[in-house]
Amino acid sequence: MNRLLADLRIVELSAFVAAPLGGMTMAQMGAEVIRIDPIGGGIDFNRWPVAPSGASLYWAGLNKAKRSVALALDKPEGRELARAIATAPGPGCGIVLTNLPPLPGLDYASLKTARDDVILLRLTGNRDGSAAVDYTVNAASGFPLVTGHGGGQPVNHVLPAWDIAAGLYLATALLAAERHRSRTGAGQEVTAALSDVMLAAVGHLGYVGDVQINGHARPAIGNDLYGSFGRDFATADGRRIMIIALTPRQWRGLGRATGLAEKFTMIGTIMEVDLETETGRFEARNAIAALLAPWCAARSLDEIGEAFAGTGVLWGRFQDFVGLVTQDPRCSTTNPLFAEVEQPGIGSYLMPGLPLDFGAAPRQPTRPAPLLGEHTDQVLSEVLGLASTEIGRLHDIGVAAGPTRP
Amino acid sequence: MNRLLADLRIVELSAFVAAPLGGMTMAQMGAEVIRIDPIGGGIDFNRWPVAPSGASLYWAGLNKAKRSVALALDKPEGRELARAIATAPGPGCGIVLTNLPPLPGLDYASLKTARDDVILLRLTGNRDGSAAVDYTVNAASGFPLVTGHGGGQPVNHVLPAWDIAAGLYLATALLAAERHRSRTGAGQEVTAALSDVMLAAVGHLGYVGDVQINGHARPAIGNDLYGSFGRDFATADGRRIMIIALTPRQWRGLGRATGLAEKFTMIGTIMEVDLETETGRFEARNAIAALLAPWCAARSLDEIGEAFAGTGVLWGRFQDFVGLVTQDPRCSTTNPLFAEVEQPGIGSYLMPGLPLDFGAAPRQPTRPAPLLGEHTDQVLSEVLGLASTEIGRLHDIGVAAGPTRP
Repeated sequence: MNRLLADLRIVELSAFVAAPLGGMTMAQMGAEVIRIDPIGGGIDFNRWPVAPSGASLYWAGLNKAKRSVALALDKPEGRELARAIATAPGPGCGIVLTNLPPLPGLDYASLKTARDDVILLRLTGNRDGSAAVDYTVNAASGFPLVTGHGGGQPVNHVLPAWDIAAGLYLATALLAAERHRSRTGAGQEVTAALSDVMLAAVGHLGYVGDVQINGHARPAIGNDLYGSFGRDFATADGRRIMIIALTPRQWRGLGRATGLAEKFTMIGTIMEVDLETETGRFEARNAIAALLAPWCAARSLDEIGEAFAGTGVLWGRFQDFVGLVTQDPRCSTTNPLFAEVEQPGIGSYLMPGLPLDFGAAPRQPTRPAPLLGEHTDQVLSEVLGLASTEIGRLHDIGVAAGPTRP
Repeated sequence: MNRLLADLRIVELSAFVAAPLGGMTMAQMGAEVIRIDPIGGGIDFNRWPVAPSGASLYWAGLNKAKRSVALALDKPEGRELARAIATAPGPGCGIVLTNLPPLPGLDYASLKTARDDVILLRLTGNRDGSAAVDYTVNAASGFPLVTGHGGGQPVNHVLPAWDIAAGLYLATALLAAERHRSRTGAGQEVTAALSDVMLAAVGHLGYVGDVQINGHARPAIGNDLYGSFGRDFATADGRRIMIIALTPRQWRGLGRATGLAEKFTMIGTIMEVDLETETGRFEARNAIAALLAPWCAARSLDEIGEAFAGTGVLWGRFQDFVGLVTQDPRCSTTNPLFAEVEQPGIGSYLMPGLPLDFGAAPRQPTRPAPLLGEHTDQVLSEVLGLASTEIGRLHDIGVAAGPTRP
């Protein structure tokens, strides 16, 4: 959290990862982010992982520091209120972020009628508006067939990487569009498709060119690095580590730290490759690994850590989520990224803030996610100026709802 | 490409994915992005995949639409020129983006001495400045041990997902810091650690809370969705597809499209779960899959596509990179994301532009990556006002270099 964007208000109509992450990134830079959900919660309100209470740790994680408004979005009156909140006046207001199909009255044309300079950022599955989610986009990306050891069995990533990228593209786009509006007075609709986010990444990384120019695609090679040296190894105490030599400096450090430099030189001779180049190390990777595997297998993780300390060797240990949370000091309050925060309905646990440190905007305390509908009345009063009698009426007729304990 | 940020100039000292992607995102929104590399190229200049000429498709992919300057960054005079370019006057200038260890004279204090309102965005491996790359950060993330079928064998993702997220966080941070400067006149240093980007995502997705609140971590479950229904299936013609039912609507659509609705209901009864809930579908996933697997195995991919068309079923086909490039219409010039572009030293192939469509800033033609050093003389002349005799001297003494054919 910081206060860098404290003059912005963003209204979010969202679910799952992408738009919620984009909005939360703005909230963590101080923007007022109002997430409007249907009464009872959106389609992501119960998403796993969940706490014993049934409250979603996932929903809490992706909606920190936002305000929550619950409205009957299936009724015209609920949608009119949502549009009024989204298009309320104010120089930093009138910005809407969504990854849901547009509801009547909440499409760009309707929003623009209510506020001419509105900015709408809209993520779709495919460019033609058809549905796609991280799982289907990933299936089409080519990556699952080169993850793991191949053989035609796709291996999906577990990290929703395309959603995360899309959410951060939306955050970038939001600031670019707001910059344009502050200079010209003009709003706009900005659209992105999750499948285009995937296609752009595949192209940027060279894999489209690889097929078109070279006529082939990279193979599945387990945990090996493609085009350089990197592989996972087992240690004497049953752990696994990743050892990498991308640069000549890292490669020489590895030879020195393991005492294998001379044997590595002989491998270069035997395999007729230049191990000072990435290509050479990739071509000789099995021979290199044949030396490194017994070296690692004869040593515990701690012994390897000592041998590599200060040598410039690039390596890392594998750990599971339990190890990450309970044993990695980076995942604790010794890291300013984290704070122990009480999340209503769940309990107190480590919450990450924004993974960016701004010299000119000091970190503020991390704020938990709201209860669903926690700010309905406040927002109807503060943003729309509704009287408490009118707000009461909206509750009575089922158009607005207050906080729901998860 | 568009022209939204045409008044900004960003100087990039970078390698690999994160900072280059952040800078390229700015370039694709019209900013002038000058990547300064050592003469002969940085540590990523030959990164795979490469073309038959040896030129890197990866480097070309991540540096599109930039200007390239080659200077002897190992010499004080080369670093002085880099600092002068980075801190040259102009309201949209004085923005530096880096993911390399700071060189003498190019750290924040030195840049600020040359231009008080400079903005430096700096990505490190770990927060303490120690080295970490996507491979080591991923090993620590917990994800490789829940990717695939588990059993203690980590499976690395092939997509450099943490680097991509970090690059897009940098893009967001750049615009937030520039917004602050345009309002207050103050520059700043913004830092981010790749490991914090990972830790934030693990926390945001609920996995830190899962360990702390529930005392356990999610297991490895192959390609199954965690907490809902989703799995991959084989078709009669040897393809694989992903079928997902996240929402009640998708679940009911699946029952209707396959004709299995009645049997699904019986599964709910037998398994004593409510299949209208995500948790119920997750708990009964093997029974659901036992019905779906023979249904898919009896049909070709095309037949399944016809059966699912217009039903609201969420599904996708797996394809490899060759299939993506040669058979998926989204990866072609029928998609405005792509253009066929001639990349010097490589040839003509499909290049993606920015996966964002701005209503107020129409797409401009996609521009290829520069040759290394292609703009050295132009930048020294235009930005620093050096005379051609002085530029000639810099070449003669090996401080500046012109275009290098890859």
